[in-house]
Amino acid sequence: MIVRPRPNAIALLFVIRGSVVPRIFPHLLAVGLFAAAVSALHELRWLSVPEFSLAPFTLLGVALSIFLGFRNNASYERWWEARKQWGAMVYEIRSLARSSETLLDLQAEHSAAGQLRHDLLHWCAAHCHALRGSLRQQDCRNELKSWLNDEDIERLFSHRNPAEYCLRRAGRIIGELYRQQHIDSVGLRILDEHLTRLAAVQAASERIATTPLPFAYTLLTHRTAYLYCYLLPFGLVPSLGWYAALFTVIVAYTFFGLDVLSEEMEEPFGCEANDLPLDALCRINEISIAESLGETPPPLLQPVKHVLQ
Amino acid sequence: MIVRPRPNAIALLFVIRGSVVPRIFPHLLAVGLFAAAVSALHELRWLSVPEFSLAPFTLLGVALSIFLGFRNNASYERWWEARKQWGAMVYEIRSLARSSETLLDLQAEHSAAGQLRHDLLHWCAAHCHALRGSLRQQDCRNELKSWLNDEDIERLFSHRNPAEYCLRRAGRIIGELYRQQHIDSVGLRILDEHLTRLAAVQAASERIATTPLPFAYTLLTHRTAYLYCYLLPFGLVPSLGWYAALFTVIVAYTFFGLDVLSEEMEEPFGCEANDLPLDALCRINEISIAESLGETPPPLLQPVKHVLQ
Amino acid sequence: MIVRPRPNAIALLFVIRGSVVPRIFPHLLAVGLFAAAVSALHELRWLSVPEFSLAPFTLLGVALSIFLGFRNNASYERWWEARKQWGAMVYEIRSLARSSETLLDLQAEHSAAGQLRHDLLHWCAAHCHALRGSLRQQDCRNELKSWLNDEDIERLFSHRNPAEYCLRRAGRIIGELYRQQHIDSVGLRILDEHLTRLAAVQAASERIATTPLPFAYTLLTHRTAYLYCYLLPFGLVPSLGWYAALFTVIVAYTFFGLDVLSEEMEEPFGCEANDLPLDALCRINEISIAESLGETPPPLLQPVKHVLQ
Amino acid sequence: MIVRPRPNAIALLFVIRGSVVPRIFPHLLAVGLFAAAVSALHELRWLSVPEFSLAPFTLLGVALSIFLGFRNNASYERWWEARKQWGAMVYEIRSLARSSETLLDLQAEHSAAGQLRHDLLHWCAAHCHALRGSLRQQDCRNELKSWLNDEDIERLFSHRNPAEYCLRRAGRIIGELYRQQHIDSVGLRILDEHLTRLAAVQAASERIATTPLPFAYTLLTHRTAYLYCYLLPFGLVPSLGWYAALFTVIVAYTFFGLDVLSEEMEEPFGCEANDLPLDALCRINEISIAESLGETPPPLLQPVKHVLQ
Amino acid sequence: MIVRPRPNAIALLFVIRGSVVPRIFPHLLAVGLFAAAVSALHELRWLSVPEFSLAPFTLLGVALSIFLGFRNNASYERWWEARKQWGAMVYEIRSLARSSETLLDLQAEHSAAGQLRHDLLHWCAAHCHALRGSLRQQDCRNELKSWLNDEDIERLFSHRNPAEYCLRRAGRIIGELYRQQHIDSVGLRILDEHLTRLAAVQAASERIATTPLPFAYTLLTHRTAYLYCYLLPFGLVPSLGWYAALFTVIVAYTFFGLDVLSEEMEEPFGCEANDLPLDALCRINEISIAESLGETPPPLLQPVKHVLQ
Repeated sequence: MIVRPRPNAIALLFVIRGSVVPRIFPHLLAVGLFAAAVSALHELRWLSVPEFSLAPFTLLGVALSIFLGFRNNASYERWWEARKQWGAMVYEIRSLARSSETLLDLQAEHSAAGQLRHDLLHWCAAHCHALRGSLRQQDCRNELKSWLNDEDIERLFSHRNPAEYCLRRAGRIIGELYRQQHIDSVGLRILDEHLTRLAAVQAASERIATTPLPFAYTLLTHRTAYLYCYLLPFGLVPSLGWYAALFTVIVAYTFFGLDVLSEEMEEPFGCEANDLPLDALCRINEISIAESLGETPPPLLQPVKHVLQ
Repeated sequence: MIVRPRPNAIALLFVIRGSVVPRIFPHLLAVGLFAAAVSALHELRWLSVPEFSLAPFTLLGVALSIFLGFRNNASYERWWEARKQWGAMVYEIRSLARSSETLLDLQAEHSAAGQLRHDLLHWCAAHCHALRGSLRQQDCRNELKSWLNDEDIERLFSHRNPAEYCLRRAGRIIGELYRQQHIDSVGLRILDEHLTRLAAVQAASERIATTPLPFAYTLLTHRTAYLYCYLLPFGLVPSLGWYAALFTVIVAYTFFGLDVLSEEMEEPFGCEANDLPLDALCRINEISIAESLGETPPPLLQPVKHVLQ
Repeated sequence: MIVRPRPNAIALLFVIRGSVVPRIFPHLLAVGLFAAAVSALHELRWLSVPEFSLAPFTLLGVALSIFLGFRNNASYERWWEARKQWGAMVYEIRSLARSSETLLDLQAEHSAAGQLRHDLLHWCAAHCHALRGSLRQQDCRNELKSWLNDEDIERLFSHRNPAEYCLRRAGRIIGELYRQQHIDSVGLRILDEHLTRLAAVQAASERIATTPLPFAYTLLTHRTAYLYCYLLPFGLVPSLGWYAALFTVIVAYTFFGLDVLSEEMEEPFGCEANDLPLDALCRINEISIAESLGETPPPLLQPVKHVLQ
Repeated sequence: MIVRPRPNAIALLFVIRGSVVPRIFPHLLAVGLFAAAVSALHELRWLSVPEFSLAPFTLLGVALSIFLGFRNNASYERWWEARKQWGAMVYEIRSLARSSETLLDLQAEHSAAGQLRHDLLHWCAAHCHALRGSLRQQDCRNELKSWLNDEDIERLFSHRNPAEYCLRRAGRIIGELYRQQHIDSVGLRILDEHLTRLAAVQAASERIATTPLPFAYTLLTHRTAYLYCYLLPFGLVPSLGWYAALFTVIVAYTFFGLDVLSEEMEEPFGCEANDLPLDALCRINEISIAESLGETPPPLLQPVKHVLQ
Repeated sequence: MIVRPRPNAIALLFVIRGSVVPRIFPHLLAVGLFAAAVSALHELRWLSVPEFSLAPFTLLGVALSIFLGFRNNASYERWWEARKQWGAMVYEIRSLARSSETLLDLQAEHSAAGQLRHDLLHWCAAHCHALRGSLRQQDCRNELKSWLNDEDIERLFSHRNPAEYCLRRAGRIIGELYRQQHIDSVGLRILDEHLTRLAAVQAASERIATTPLPFAYTLLTHRTAYLYCYLLPFGLVPSLGWYAALFTVIVAYTFFGLDVLSEEMEEPFGCEANDLPLDALCRINEISIAESLGETPPPLLQPVKHVLQ
């Protein structure tokens, strides 16, 4: 995620980081050269090129605006829903830490209840890293080592869905607290509900990560945008002449830019500049858990070159 | 559902699978030939054809964009809500498995509570297959055999709504756990709530499957799009001549494409390429249940030719 | 509600049932004749008519598209929310039937608890019919007779809000179960929550039925659409001549069609072709209740001439 | 709120009540006279006036349609959310009445529990009036007299937020029921949750009433609409001549009408024709409470000249 | 937040406070002078300037309207969600005050339960100020002094997330009430749920404050709007001549205005004129808590020059 104070109006025109320009530059160049070639053929009358009026392009614009606007909204909503889910994870973990402290009698140093609560929260921290690992297809063993012992890590990865396994283990600890009568069934319900909502966050994240927007939208949008931009010079040349290439590139910049940006938003759990900072969110959870257990919390993650991972 | 890495920009232009082109090809051909005929009549002056200016088409475009944009959004929301509901099913089943493990004392091998929990989760797996079967009007007896005995399967299909019956049976098992005092009324409430939410998923799926978008929208959209595309050549011929057919086909591609795509999205539980992968989602639930019971989970389903069923 | 397999592309053009054409036909005829008269006066030069360019119509189109698009979305959302509420009723009733079976010990044939549960579910079936009756202002005594005795029906209709009275009676039965110690307070809570959500469905249905879209929207939309369509011939005649009438009718078809369709969607509880099938939804609830009580369920309602009431 | 059967298509064109025409008439007259003056100057060539082409107006139309469409949607959503909140109040009060009857043993005439329940529901009725009073800045002492004694009314108005005080008093009664052991802690929770949701309705209503749409939107919309309409005659005169005034007035009717309508919707708790009928909703609550207590309910409020207060 | 009665239609045109004009004035001046220069070069024929037709600008308008409309909606939704969250905080704190009074036996003056409840509510008031402080990066020690003693304030700021620490302390007090048997586990659950929802408000506020809209949107919108406005004079000059500058400034006013306004809405927790009045909302909470504890509430905050902080 790009985190930076908004540059002033003129600086904004030349910012590169976070911009989609680098990604679409080759396409802009191609369409610009093509438009220039059409202009040349037309202006120099070397060859007769078909010249269209611009009116048909406004008709196509109707369909294109539906596609682009729809896809953009849908992609952004995926991105924002993903962020909301990870925000929900933050407060569920904090609330689990708080509720367990409220419910349990932790006065006695190294009490049995205190040890079980310690394990419970460690498994929640592990859940958070395991989920990040599976969403981003990253290895998260290093981060897990702060929270689990090696045996547990091995057992974790022997299961199909490591994040689900973490919650199952957390559930077993709650069962332990119940059977040792540190909590009654209402207390069990309070703690179990937090796990259920963490499972909801996990399922929603997996839904977003594994269910792309219907592929046919990508095809329709992409194809219409390309057809539009490569036909446009024929419509612009009669009235704009040599300036047709300039306009074609500007129009292509906006359409291709929106296309590429929608693509980035669509998969919010990736590692691109505009994706969600899962590392930083995991760290926020780690700090909450550490402070709640009275341990020394690790430092907050800082953006590197305006990008927060 | 189409699952594939995004092809590069050029490959995207020629992808067929997941595209709506095959489905609308006959219509595109028809409208293209019609436009070519109009151009021919006009260019060769064999017959006088009425020539319209393009301006009226931009007026019609207002209404058409409302229809198409609205229908597309509504269809996509149905598709995405359906996916969310089945995502909710995933975490409700996982949470039911986890909560029941938390609540029950499963230490004793082959305990009564363990056997009841085993049955409870098996009925949930059956619920998921029975619902898929009724939504897709598929036979799901084969998949049910892994989870129920033959007698139960027979009894299941003797009820009007097999999926509802599965939850009723699951409820009876929870009642059994309650009366045998494995759980108290709070524990009953925890487990019962998961069943209520599975019932909610079922009712929402049935709602989407049995309540199409109002038929009048389909009619208005379809008719306006056809009228538009068949009148368009008369508007394009004066300025574009022979190229009118090209433009008509491009415009028709976007409008018919959106029409057909909205139709596919509208019924997310079908078996078409862009529909939801219910088989794969059922399998995810089966894996969760099997792992939670300590059984060997079946393998994940893989996409076949980029299509996940 | 229209329930039919989607006809093929050509048949779709000529379907009448579910279409808005019959309702707007007189208006289309009027506007078509008016446009033809304007064309005649213009073409035959019998009288000088003011001729406008088309450009001002695109300006008006901005406002019109905001009105129509907004009103259409708002009406559809009302319709869909109403459907969701009745879908929620389906699963709340199913869950009430299931939870009460889970909670109560029904082994003993004709137990007191069993009789109370029987009454509870019968009052829920009555609730559903009473609500339908008041939303559609239909008489529902006949349907109620299957579920209540005559005395109760009389008492029901002596109250201002019969559906609310049904839930109050159901609540009393739950109180009876509680005081007879068939359930504890947690059990009471489980059952009571279902009644609360049925009350929510009722209040939401009443809200939609009694609160129309602000009347000023209807006025603005209707007036702008009429002004637009009756002025349009003056704009079309200069460029289209005799074909102006054709285009005016097509544009009027889309605008009036959307106007009338929005009006139908706005009141989803009516009995028009595109309204919600409350009878069929009540029947679904009756089947759930009957099966849950071990009684013979009535048959599902079938669409008559593609219309499901 | 305007409540009337939809008039037929022709009557709709001349309806005044509920229309925004009376409010915007002076502005329409002004802009019409201005446009007529511009036409006169142009047609009679008394003075040279700048003549613009219409094209720039379509550019401005982009921005204007964003402003108007956005503001209209946001205002309508506020209005509809307000209605939903008051609908939620209806079912929370009904459910509180029902749940308290379910929980308490009311057999004994004039039992202590019955008296406390009577007070509890009376405070809820008072809450509803007090909230209406503060939202509309109306005096509601008269209506409160049916439900509270004079002393309580005085004490009520000695608090900053009378509606909040009603709920606090209702909470104390629930505490009384709990300490007198008419209900256990689960019963307390059931009743308390209804009060919490009534507090939610109150907070949401206060939010909508005290947080207008950002003032800058009102400014941008208003200014752009005025600039647009006063510049429009210069664009219309060249092609439409004397008819420019007619078109300007029609366009201004739609833009000013939407502006004024959005303004009315924005504050749904006012007393204008299109605002919410809080009096009628309070009465619905009073009827529910009276019937539930076995008292004679007051009559429903009826619309006066199609307006329901 | 700007709080003022709506000025009349003419006054609205000249209001400055709350308007975006002061912020975009330099940019309007720049673009206006540029347009005047282009007009001069064109009219006086001092230099040949490229003249474009206006048609390409309507094409660009498609993309621009998608960007601006989308960004505006997304920013407004952030602003409104932030307001909803703080409205939820208001009723959670009120409900916590009410529920704790319902649950606890406060008859005895200076009872132990009463003292704990007093502390609980004071920590909630502190939570609210601490959250405001961290969202606005303001120092809130002064406001905290009314609610906490110096030692607690010091300890508060020694934690990474002071607002989270307040809730943790509030949770400990609930635990104290539980272990001293003033409440049972159901009572604990009632109070704990309010804290969980306050944690949800906090997490949502932090989410909105720390996750800006994807930076690429800002870039695309800003760049397209600037390119558009600086190219526009070349399109307007041929038909409008010297008036091109007037139109360019009006168009730029709407586009730049929307751009700047979206930017303000995007960060609703700032201190600009259109941002949320967090100070006033904190005060509302303080009044609720003080009245509930029987203390003298502080006065409501009033807007200063129409601005409520």
